[in-house]
Amino acid sequence: MSLVKLYDTTLRDGTQAEDISFLVEDKIRIAHKLDELGVHYIEGGWPGSNPKDVAFFKDIKKEKLQQAKIAAFGSTRRAKTTPANDHNIKTLIAAEPDVITIFGKTWDFHVREALRISLEENLELINDSLVFLKQNVAEVFYDAEHFFDGYKANPEYAIKTLKAAEDAGVDCIILCDTNGGSMPYEVADIIAKVRKQIKTPLGIHTHNDGECAVANSIVAVDQGIVQVQGTINGFGERCGNANLCSIIPAIKLKLKKDCISDEQLRHLREVSNYIFELANLSPDKHLAYVGKSAFAHKGGVHVSAIQRHPETYEHIRPELVGNSTRVLVSDLSGKSNILAKAEEFQINLDSKDPVTQEILEEIKEMENRGFQFEGAEASFELMMKKALGTHKKFFQVMGFRVIDEKRTDDQKPTSEATVMIKVGGKIEHTAAEGHGPVNALDNALRKALEKFYPKLKEVKLHDYKVRVLPAGQGTASSIRVLIELGDKISRWGTVGVSDNIIDASYQALIDGIDFKLHHEDSV
Amino acid sequence: MSLVKLYDTTLRDGTQAEDISFLVEDKIRIAHKLDELGVHYIEGGWPGSNPKDVAFFKDIKKEKLQQAKIAAFGSTRRAKTTPANDHNIKTLIAAEPDVITIFGKTWDFHVREALRISLEENLELINDSLVFLKQNVAEVFYDAEHFFDGYKANPEYAIKTLKAAEDAGVDCIILCDTNGGSMPYEVADIIAKVRKQIKTPLGIHTHNDGECAVANSIVAVDQGIVQVQGTINGFGERCGNANLCSIIPAIKLKLKKDCISDEQLRHLREVSNYIFELANLSPDKHLAYVGKSAFAHKGGVHVSAIQRHPETYEHIRPELVGNSTRVLVSDLSGKSNILAKAEEFQINLDSKDPVTQEILEEIKEMENRGFQFEGAEASFELMMKKALGTHKKFFQVMGFRVIDEKRTDDQKPTSEATVMIKVGGKIEHTAAEGHGPVNALDNALRKALEKFYPKLKEVKLHDYKVRVLPAGQGTASSIRVLIELGDKISRWGTVGVSDNIIDASYQALIDGIDFKLHHEDSV
Repeated sequence: MSLVKLYDTTLRDGTQAEDISFLVEDKIRIAHKLDELGVHYIEGGWPGSNPKDVAFFKDIKKEKLQQAKIAAFGSTRRAKTTPANDHNIKTLIAAEPDVITIFGKTWDFHVREALRISLEENLELINDSLVFLKQNVAEVFYDAEHFFDGYKANPEYAIKTLKAAEDAGVDCIILCDTNGGSMPYEVADIIAKVRKQIKTPLGIHTHNDGECAVANSIVAVDQGIVQVQGTINGFGERCGNANLCSIIPAIKLKLKKDCISDEQLRHLREVSNYIFELANLSPDKHLAYVGKSAFAHKGGVHVSAIQRHPETYEHIRPELVGNSTRVLVSDLSGKSNILAKAEEFQINLDSKDPVTQEILEEIKEMENRGFQFEGAEASFELMMKKALGTHKKFFQVMGFRVIDEKRTDDQKPTSEATVMIKVGGKIEHTAAEGHGPVNALDNALRKALEKFYPKLKEVKLHDYKVRVLPAGQGTASSIRVLIELGDKISRWGTVGVSDNIIDASYQALIDGIDFKLHHEDSV
Repeated sequence: MSLVKLYDTTLRDGTQAEDISFLVEDKIRIAHKLDELGVHYIEGGWPGSNPKDVAFFKDIKKEKLQQAKIAAFGSTRRAKTTPANDHNIKTLIAAEPDVITIFGKTWDFHVREALRISLEENLELINDSLVFLKQNVAEVFYDAEHFFDGYKANPEYAIKTLKAAEDAGVDCIILCDTNGGSMPYEVADIIAKVRKQIKTPLGIHTHNDGECAVANSIVAVDQGIVQVQGTINGFGERCGNANLCSIIPAIKLKLKKDCISDEQLRHLREVSNYIFELANLSPDKHLAYVGKSAFAHKGGVHVSAIQRHPETYEHIRPELVGNSTRVLVSDLSGKSNILAKAEEFQINLDSKDPVTQEILEEIKEMENRGFQFEGAEASFELMMKKALGTHKKFFQVMGFRVIDEKRTDDQKPTSEATVMIKVGGKIEHTAAEGHGPVNALDNALRKALEKFYPKLKEVKLHDYKVRVLPAGQGTASSIRVLIELGDKISRWGTVGVSDNIIDASYQALIDGIDFKLHHEDSV
């Protein structure tokens, strides 16, 4: 089975994305994750461009990687100098990576307008830069920038630039769709032509400006390309780079070629989420293969079908990429969804039971008010228990007060909460401070309840999301709060909706605590 | 120039997406937007499946559309009945749409496992359902569900199902990649084969489970398909449907075929955002063509290049789809970005001026603390003014207090804010209520300041976004608030970061008011 090598540039091209900025420590942690995933090459950065990247190459040497090779990125030498005297090329070699990848100009327009040198001179600096690097590094790759646009504008010259690299004996020539506007039918056609003239192994580097980056990489592999460059989750400038999370499963499961092991593939979703987390972005649930919704079914018809035969509405088995089938509950869902959910929560629900219909009605009504139970399964379970009359009232909040105060211009506001709760006959009245009103309220509630339910000490607030729901959604503008709590064993999500952020947060917090108590109780 | 017709199913397949639920009024508003965009067919829903969709077809009749035709979606008749007696088919006709589209089974596996009837019987119910519909409606389309999977499993039978539709005289046969797992090279190959055997005009309907939905639609058009089905922003179940916002520009600008006018194309970005808004989702900034970041440049090299020649790093002119070039400011950005931004704000900044370097340093430091200036240009402008010493202090907040109180279990919390501000020598001490602490604080601040700056009465709070930044980003976990304020003429965004949501909101509110006063002043 032919092998396709993966070249990850999340740490270099990925950081060109709006919103993405990694600390050096993040980059080291990500490099380890990529190595575990089985990526063959990790492009760590452009040492010539910023100190952060220089630090990465220094620090990564102290780390023990399983098999991934570290690549440094840079450009061909400047005009009117020699490779040996070119600052950028010197910093590349000084970084001591396993692999060096430099880009050069393919498009005659760029040679004239950006470099402002002759077409001939450009061929020379591509060639001698690479010859020099080959004398100093084990493996050297050449990124043919703007290759497809260049080829369309001037095929003869584009091929000449590749030959200049081939003559230097580079290990791989990567065809780049730098502006990301090429179409799959062009990519397939052009690569077929290039392969007739270039014998050096070829790679592909695409961008998503036409929403075709993944498809362009896939048709390239179908055309015999042996190296694919991309980023995890498709991070990258503008519309992003080719998304390795979609390309890897396609190579293995669709094209049936080798790249990473089946076991490594089962960690794909975990790697995707891990890197979203370090990038400080909430995962895109609709991502192919790895997204939370990738195998989520809403329509009643689909749900009953996949329960019999998953392949009826799933193109692969979710487990292969570490994902799983989910059944969604919404006003589009039939009883089958509700029953499937109930089963998930080990609640006996009879399809003939009028309560099932009741729950459906309540969901529709709550969704109209802005509630959303995807990601808030704990609130959904409590709602079912209430409808079924199996919900226990562990405590009652009599009232609370939160005060945020800023005394002087330069001082930060402080937050203090007081709560009064009732458990059985006893009343507890207490207060706590916090980072902001919600944290203070959470602290005060827990402080009061831990007296009665010590197990709550284990509970931690893991995530807090706020969404402002614009008006004109059938209700006045309101605020939805989703929180995630967890203990040593598990995590659970709850939801609250109100025009008041404190009230919405309060609802979600109460559900979160209530859920814990119900489960402690049932254990 | 050959014409490709657009069939939008945002209102039907789009609503299968997790998180998406439209009210009937939303659907009517969206239908008008789609009509203005020049979409040829608007699939309004499945009248047989839920009352909401029945209501849509009733209400849309009262509306005046420019040219779009309204289509109703449903399935072939059930087994053991006649089309005339089939409930689903009767509701379709009762909805009185311009077009009826029904789906039928192509994949022998589905016929056996889902329908549980003979392969022969399936051909009959496809054919007679369509024959009956043709007698009752002007235009009838046939969606061949799971066509590509069915063809791969049993090509002879898959073609037979298409022939059954062709023999019924349908106006278009749509090849569906229902599970979304087909690859572009397969789609091109299979369509070429189908066209040899089927003369009825063909359409394409793809899903994004392999991140190839757009590419698969594009190669289909390249293969002579004349109808493309998709949704705005790629809304749809699991990983979504084919994204018309990427397909439309590809048809016009890449394949050079006709579908909507150049003028309509210039509204594409506006339509995308409008529908995100009604779907109650924040727009995905990295979307091809229409995303806020689609033409945003961060790397210093790129920025200096596009300023000379946009085509160096932009695959199309952003204006063609109603988008525009943006220059981002970040710790990756060179001086050229800062200078470009300064120019945008009509601030004279000299590249040699040490202040430019100072601003870069401050941005890096602030970004490390979690600040982000994309979407918060007003805060960025104020920061520049402070660095340049051209910032005026219009007011000073001496202090504030916000109290959120819930008195009884069933009562909602109330929020009240008191503020003390100083303008010139005068001190103003006042209080206001609000929906939640931030709204109360905003009301109190404005109430106090309007005394001195009546122009602030025009200012409205348009958007409020909260993002919890997880710890381990070099700082303790903190909260970022982005707000958007506006007056009659313009809108501006500001940002605040703190571990306290009130403090972060306060920073953003103050910047928002301060920005308005600076601009009133300069007028």
